[in-house]
Amino acid sequence: MSSGSTSTSTDAASRLLEAWSGRLAIDHHCHPLFPWPRDVGARQLRAVFTEAVDPEILDQHMPALAAYRDAIRRLAKALDCEATEEAVLQARSKSDPATHANRLLQQTATEMLLLDSGYTGGQPFSLEEHAREIGIPQREVVRLETLAERYISSAGSPSDWLGAVRSGLREAVEGGAVGVKTISAYRAGLALRPIGADELSAAFGELQARAGSGGSKRIAGEALCYSLLADAAEEIARLGVPLQVHCGFGDNDEDLAKSNPLGLRPLLVEPRYEGLRLVLLHCYPFHREAAYLCSVYRHAYMDLSLTLPLAGLDGQRAMRETLGLCPWTKVLYASDASRLPEIYFVAAAVHREALAGAFGEFVDRAMLSFDEAVAAGEQVLAANARRVYNL
Amino acid sequence: MSSGSTSTSTDAASRLLEAWSGRLAIDHHCHPLFPWPRDVGARQLRAVFTEAVDPEILDQHMPALAAYRDAIRRLAKALDCEATEEAVLQARSKSDPATHANRLLQQTATEMLLLDSGYTGGQPFSLEEHAREIGIPQREVVRLETLAERYISSAGSPSDWLGAVRSGLREAVEGGAVGVKTISAYRAGLALRPIGADELSAAFGELQARAGSGGSKRIAGEALCYSLLADAAEEIARLGVPLQVHCGFGDNDEDLAKSNPLGLRPLLVEPRYEGLRLVLLHCYPFHREAAYLCSVYRHAYMDLSLTLPLAGLDGQRAMRETLGLCPWTKVLYASDASRLPEIYFVAAAVHREALAGAFGEFVDRAMLSFDEAVAAGEQVLAANARRVYNL
Amino acid sequence: MSSGSTSTSTDAASRLLEAWSGRLAIDHHCHPLFPWPRDVGARQLRAVFTEAVDPEILDQHMPALAAYRDAIRRLAKALDCEATEEAVLQARSKSDPATHANRLLQQTATEMLLLDSGYTGGQPFSLEEHAREIGIPQREVVRLETLAERYISSAGSPSDWLGAVRSGLREAVEGGAVGVKTISAYRAGLALRPIGADELSAAFGELQARAGSGGSKRIAGEALCYSLLADAAEEIARLGVPLQVHCGFGDNDEDLAKSNPLGLRPLLVEPRYEGLRLVLLHCYPFHREAAYLCSVYRHAYMDLSLTLPLAGLDGQRAMRETLGLCPWTKVLYASDASRLPEIYFVAAAVHREALAGAFGEFVDRAMLSFDEAVAAGEQVLAANARRVYNL
Repeated sequence: MSSGSTSTSTDAASRLLEAWSGRLAIDHHCHPLFPWPRDVGARQLRAVFTEAVDPEILDQHMPALAAYRDAIRRLAKALDCEATEEAVLQARSKSDPATHANRLLQQTATEMLLLDSGYTGGQPFSLEEHAREIGIPQREVVRLETLAERYISSAGSPSDWLGAVRSGLREAVEGGAVGVKTISAYRAGLALRPIGADELSAAFGELQARAGSGGSKRIAGEALCYSLLADAAEEIARLGVPLQVHCGFGDNDEDLAKSNPLGLRPLLVEPRYEGLRLVLLHCYPFHREAAYLCSVYRHAYMDLSLTLPLAGLDGQRAMRETLGLCPWTKVLYASDASRLPEIYFVAAAVHREALAGAFGEFVDRAMLSFDEAVAAGEQVLAANARRVYNL
Repeated sequence: MSSGSTSTSTDAASRLLEAWSGRLAIDHHCHPLFPWPRDVGARQLRAVFTEAVDPEILDQHMPALAAYRDAIRRLAKALDCEATEEAVLQARSKSDPATHANRLLQQTATEMLLLDSGYTGGQPFSLEEHAREIGIPQREVVRLETLAERYISSAGSPSDWLGAVRSGLREAVEGGAVGVKTISAYRAGLALRPIGADELSAAFGELQARAGSGGSKRIAGEALCYSLLADAAEEIARLGVPLQVHCGFGDNDEDLAKSNPLGLRPLLVEPRYEGLRLVLLHCYPFHREAAYLCSVYRHAYMDLSLTLPLAGLDGQRAMRETLGLCPWTKVLYASDASRLPEIYFVAAAVHREALAGAFGEFVDRAMLSFDEAVAAGEQVLAANARRVYNL
Repeated sequence: MSSGSTSTSTDAASRLLEAWSGRLAIDHHCHPLFPWPRDVGARQLRAVFTEAVDPEILDQHMPALAAYRDAIRRLAKALDCEATEEAVLQARSKSDPATHANRLLQQTATEMLLLDSGYTGGQPFSLEEHAREIGIPQREVVRLETLAERYISSAGSPSDWLGAVRSGLREAVEGGAVGVKTISAYRAGLALRPIGADELSAAFGELQARAGSGGSKRIAGEALCYSLLADAAEEIARLGVPLQVHCGFGDNDEDLAKSNPLGLRPLLVEPRYEGLRLVLLHCYPFHREAAYLCSVYRHAYMDLSLTLPLAGLDGQRAMRETLGLCPWTKVLYASDASRLPEIYFVAAAVHREALAGAFGEFVDRAMLSFDEAVAAGEQVLAANARRVYNL
């Protein structure tokens, strides 16, 4: 894997990157690529390096994001072209898109992709297509809310619905899904609270009525989302697969004030969720809070996907902050990449550098030996995910 | 502009400071100076370098604030005296105060001051006096709550009052004001929520009754402040000027728990505020949250005024953290200075060094070329404000 | 005092550590040691370096915490053995435990321990035993909730109970206690609000009934804890001793979402608490918020005990962040150590290094002279506590 154009700050960090260069990673949270697009323009490329969807941000502000400038430099080096957006776009347009994508993905040194199949921002490859097109083994992570929407119309009652979701989850896991993901942060927030039967019943009735008259089946609001999550989490615990939770920042649909992972505490302490492994995704800017949860709750894990590389050097700081309270056996490697191969490539490079920077600092401060740091990073790259997902 | 006595950490940072030395900045948020005071003592000088108003903090603790010690060193260098508070006070007392002030302000390399005329901590120069006394062009930013207090007694109803405020805002903008500022954080917080007609009516009735019996017209509480802000924000959007919002830390009147800019989300997403440019002021310690808002919402902007220089080196870290998610086209330069010229001088020096430190790190890490970093900093110093305020 | 095996990052930092090496510190917040245990195994040693109580975290994850690895290295150096957990355990087992403990505690260069006598995680030495066994002078800090539980059964009403608590506090202070500590964060949170008489009465009735039928006297919930704290705080103000408040992270019993020190604002602004000195303990990850409170409220103080050393290098960053807004006359030195002597030793070394790193940066950046930095650190090590606790 290329380490990209950004120099790391210490000699120990460089040596760590080198030591890990042959080590394959498990990307425990990403999305399928989009079917090979004809012409990728600046706006499409920029869109994978930000959570913004506003065209003005893409057009006016993305060129002024340090992390994006850095991404262009890294891509230019990999594509052997000038370090400009135009040159990068031109270089990619010269190759067959599948070849281009696989070439970049190979450079991520990834042994397996765990794919969240519920991405709703467009029409990505189906999992079958993705497996055919991309030369990296993959597994499915099923998205809770997407699955739950299938059973709304046919359910006779909220409890029917929740029962159908439980069956759906069992089938998904029997069919090979290695985990479940929730986007409650987007739909209701993460400040979990018990929902009474009447509150759920009213919300479910409204949703069914809307769906019945041709409206959207989109599940949103605390009554539906928290009920769904609470019930499904018990089933997920029984199924022995982890539950991924979107935490922290996301696109403009989300209220970040309600996306603090601390609100998930009931899932970590209530006996009915006994054994449920919770993987906190993204976390920024609440990564110190997430690290705390990981430090005291047996089944809490976290990653800095999305944060790396979207937050640039502050993503690298977030990794150092995380490894304050959080044991490295609790940190997972992921890209949260989607759509275009460029983001998989950049996310991988940045993530490895963030690890090298953090563990390199431990070596420089004589807190770890170099060999200990190498082994620690290997845990994050793959061993932790293998254990958490039973791979 | 003098770069002050604090060395910057990298060679790139020093070169950036040098490159920007001839570039004038637009200080998009500051306050008028106080009429030339006779004798400025230690307490008065200290008071402009802290949000504390408690005399014991000024007397006992301010000398133990690293940022204040640093300020004294910077001032001593500019005034060519010994680096002690006494020497600095003595040196300033030897000059005519207007000469002293203009000399320090000239060293800030500022081309224009946008003055919040609603400062309530004393009796500053009127805008007319200020324009006469200070040799830097200035524009007015009108303070919403101060303006709204004028119309309380004469209004027949809450909607009359809100209508009068809208008229007042139109007049202010027609009269030359380039923006509006709200201090809702101080008066109610920033966790915006819809206020019902009855709730507003009751609160307005109480306020009128109090004002009518000679009491204070101070607008406070969620019912009044959130109603005022919601209604005025629509008018401000129509007027095409930005709304500055005090966010994050402030003096002891404020509850910091309620001053998180994330609560402003309704102003960024509801269609009725379409086009409203929101400038988040200060932000610390919620600057990562503010940077997130800027990254996904077209019309969100931010600054680290007050944070720089009051938070010392942590203000400089805040700048680096901010430039993680936030494009540099969204960051504005400001001092939030008031009262004495010393704070304008120190704020300017510290702000430029914070920019140099952050952009210098990008250069050192090969994320930006030196020329790109120079241009980026120039955006922050002036171009962004010119665009946001239509200057 | 040994400076441990972790090198500090600058020459100024090293020189500061050296300058402070003969200076004794006041540990204003720690706990009594446990009676000399026969065999200390890995799990017991690990347990003092984390807030986790889960055996799986102790067994599987603690070896993967950078701060713990660092602690082992520091201990190995002090015990002159190999830098492995096994060697450290073996080395300690060779000495008489009292000798071993006193040897390590001597190396902390501590002149006085202020002991929270209410630790409930086991059976520590009584204060009398502790004074006999440990060769460092000590004073008592009385734990509010523990004291208040004594008076539940005998009280005829909630106000009787609160009155008895006030008497108990007076007796404790007359008996030599130099401060009071509250763990409201664990029992109810810190989002203080007024509690009505009915709400208190109902909660107190339930507690008495439970206690009366042989159940637990454990005080929990907002009604009881906030009433107790509000009433006791007035008495503590009258008694002229400080109130320590557990803030920020703790073990898995705590909801970190409710442990933000900003919720304590009523204790700092309401006239009935006039003169009450509040010492915010631990604070992480809300240390910037705590620093803000210290910067504007006369009687707010803080420490980073527990954060140092549990959060490793991020604890050192927390110290730098804290010294942004917070004057160094407001920061206190503490370990929050308990149970085994190893944690007192490591906490002391790490705390001094954190101070050296932060003040060393001020020296390197020419914000303070070396001599000023030496004096500033001495304030934190002992002078501040002497003043706050009237020692």
